[in-house]
Amino acid sequence: MNVTLLSHTPDPERVCAAAALTSYWHKGASETFGVLTEKEIEDILSKVMGYGHVSVIEHATFTFSIEGISRACSHQLVRHRLASYTQQSQRYVRVEELDPVVPATIAGEERAAEAYGACMKAVQETYETLVGLGVPTEDARFILPNATTTNIVMTVNARELRHFFKYRCCERAQWEIRAVAREMLALVRAVAPKIFKNAGPSCVCEHVCPEGDLSCGRIKVNANGT
Amino acid sequence: MNVTLLSHTPDPERVCAAAALTSYWHKGASETFGVLTEKEIEDILSKVMGYGHVSVIEHATFTFSIEGISRACSHQLVRHRLASYTQQSQRYVRVEELDPVVPATIAGEERAAEAYGACMKAVQETYETLVGLGVPTEDARFILPNATTTNIVMTVNARELRHFFKYRCCERAQWEIRAVAREMLALVRAVAPKIFKNAGPSCVCEHVCPEGDLSCGRIKVNANGT
Amino acid sequence: MNVTLLSHTPDPERVCAAAALTSYWHKGASETFGVLTEKEIEDILSKVMGYGHVSVIEHATFTFSIEGISRACSHQLVRHRLASYTQQSQRYVRVEELDPVVPATIAGEERAAEAYGACMKAVQETYETLVGLGVPTEDARFILPNATTTNIVMTVNARELRHFFKYRCCERAQWEIRAVAREMLALVRAVAPKIFKNAGPSCVCEHVCPEGDLSCGRIKVNANGT
Amino acid sequence: MNVTLLSHTPDPERVCAAAALTSYWHKGASETFGVLTEKEIEDILSKVMGYGHVSVIEHATFTFSIEGISRACSHQLVRHRLASYTQQSQRYVRVEELDPVVPATIAGEERAAEAYGACMKAVQETYETLVGLGVPTEDARFILPNATTTNIVMTVNARELRHFFKYRCCERAQWEIRAVAREMLALVRAVAPKIFKNAGPSCVCEHVCPEGDLSCGRIKVNANGT
Repeated sequence: MNVTLLSHTPDPERVCAAAALTSYWHKGASETFGVLTEKEIEDILSKVMGYGHVSVIEHATFTFSIEGISRACSHQLVRHRLASYTQQSQRYVRVEELDPVVPATIAGEERAAEAYGACMKAVQETYETLVGLGVPTEDARFILPNATTTNIVMTVNARELRHFFKYRCCERAQWEIRAVAREMLALVRAVAPKIFKNAGPSCVCEHVCPEGDLSCGRIKVNANGT
Repeated sequence: MNVTLLSHTPDPERVCAAAALTSYWHKGASETFGVLTEKEIEDILSKVMGYGHVSVIEHATFTFSIEGISRACSHQLVRHRLASYTQQSQRYVRVEELDPVVPATIAGEERAAEAYGACMKAVQETYETLVGLGVPTEDARFILPNATTTNIVMTVNARELRHFFKYRCCERAQWEIRAVAREMLALVRAVAPKIFKNAGPSCVCEHVCPEGDLSCGRIKVNANGT
Repeated sequence: MNVTLLSHTPDPERVCAAAALTSYWHKGASETFGVLTEKEIEDILSKVMGYGHVSVIEHATFTFSIEGISRACSHQLVRHRLASYTQQSQRYVRVEELDPVVPATIAGEERAAEAYGACMKAVQETYETLVGLGVPTEDARFILPNATTTNIVMTVNARELRHFFKYRCCERAQWEIRAVAREMLALVRAVAPKIFKNAGPSCVCEHVCPEGDLSCGRIKVNANGT
Repeated sequence: MNVTLLSHTPDPERVCAAAALTSYWHKGASETFGVLTEKEIEDILSKVMGYGHVSVIEHATFTFSIEGISRACSHQLVRHRLASYTQQSQRYVRVEELDPVVPATIAGEERAAEAYGACMKAVQETYETLVGLGVPTEDARFILPNATTTNIVMTVNARELRHFFKYRCCERAQWEIRAVAREMLALVRAVAPKIFKNAGPSCVCEHVCPEGDLSCGRIKVNANGT
């Protein structure tokens, strides 16, 4: 897995702070944008985000290239609808080498790892047989497993990212998307520390756990306040 | 594949016509809703949709149960972000019988069909081996193919449905999602004929083809007006 | 102000429960939809919503006609982007009688009420003068105040409605949209009691208050868990 | 009116082209991003956009500060739901000087201009009277007209921008939002010429007019292909 921050709104916290000021002041953002100090930016963001006025951080967007994840993981990822995606097509791109993702529960159990590896080899051979027989790539892909690696570009704003981290950085999230989410969080925290300083799972960003009796138990306050 | 219309806005065209009238008249929809005649509903919808005022048909929503499609197809389906989905989980639901979708290009070629069938059998056996060895369902699923069948419930409004039909009823769309789209269109046309009468691919609903040199050639006017 | 529930998904909780089951069971919703008992529906919704699996309630949609609210209120309303709106147009509909909304802080103070009434009368006369001089309705409307009443049709799903109630039923919300939100909540609770039983402001639905030092003080637990 | 491009995705066309390549090639965007030539970027974008594969341009986002427009105009603007907005609040920001927008049809007719100006003066005075009597700003604003100027920050991606230009650059659009749209188009065309070269109203970007008998007549081909 390889997660990179391909691009992002330049000086993202300045943009969000200038937007926030627009809301509370008679001056337009074109006037305040260039003159805000880092201290003012911090104060503005801290204040408005503290009041739950989180829409202002939608003005900062981030583009990631997420490479070498399984199709199982990308299927979960694209279910977050408030983002933009471009994914490697199995209709158009012929799979040369399967190179599947191997879950730790399989890699760590010899018999499981052997069965898994042998099956993947058979799948790869059958895929090639099908393509060799003239089956179009878009139909031959029906045999490809969830473990097949894929690349995807994702653009998402800071508000939706915080929502994404809330669910996908949680211990209860599936291990692969959790690993992706944690890498994304580290990347954006480096360029927008004020926006993402307390981002993370519910227990970190909201001090409550919504998972009920499935909770990992890290904190005791559940979402019912009990 | 089995596509059913599970539920929909009752009297969907009346709702949309009353909403449209709100825009152009001083009376509220609560006054006009009950008294509009079928003829008036037809006239209103025909007029506003003719002017491209298509947001009014967002007030009609439709819920489908789409069952027995491949995960390849559901992956395409959920990329339409302006809709709501609930899909059978491979993390929680153990696959008892693979029963994979078989593309016609494979079913129609004996050697391909044999290779495909044998491989699917091996996959099913390996899945069971993994589960038997204690691998969690959510990890064993990594071996499951795109051909695995799935069930999904989708709720979507009429505006987005027309957009969906524009792309997915096209000859250039992938065959499985095209079959789903055509069944969906038949189902909604039966309950909202005025809204969906000229719905379908671009060549039907807009009399142009955006596919350029990949066009099926059914119509000659391309999207550049040439 | 007059808020009516114009239409909604028939048997909305059955639809959502059948969708939820799709996620956790191998049976499709077309099989379970007709046979679920009320008790099963309650158990399913209570369980999945308790786990924060709230996307299933997106399958229930509600269409309201909201009439006689101010343009100030409708301007706030339409900022909720995950919904569909059709609003009375000031470009096309000539205002015959201004009939403005009067805030209680103005109605309850004699001098304020007089000044407000006199000014509204002058505005109405000027509007008519402008229209009489041939100014198009779409330009004459520039003189119309935020207090001008408007009608709007809104379609929104249950998930977004719960989010809407969380912010707009709060004591800190503006009084007019709070009144609208409370009427909407009463209307949907009557047709979908299981979905909306604990809907309302954050202090009701999540037992925390995100308003910080601006809190009304009804509950003491703030969003920082302190 | 003052429209500025506050910020945007750096090198927006490179980002979109690298994302597009991800779809059609086995290499990830982190590999291609840095090495694409301007010629390759042009070829890729031209090809994929020509096939209607417009989702790739969602990866480029633009943040505008739009200042000194009327509330009538901002009300239209925010109806485009696939964008992010932060607007000057009339609840929190006291209006010091009304400085209303004056439509040309009013400015150009002496009697209209006089009636309009006198009325605006009366409104301003009444607003101050109300505030002086202790009416909260959020209630005193009920008297403020659609003509009141406002500032708004808008962040939107290139795909939605092209959609916005299609409707709002049209001769049939309201004059004020059309002026805003044209300034926005000029600003983004300067930084992303390949993406926006043929952006504009339907007659420019699609060579058809959807306005039926309300068309300005610039082109003859209507949306029915006749």
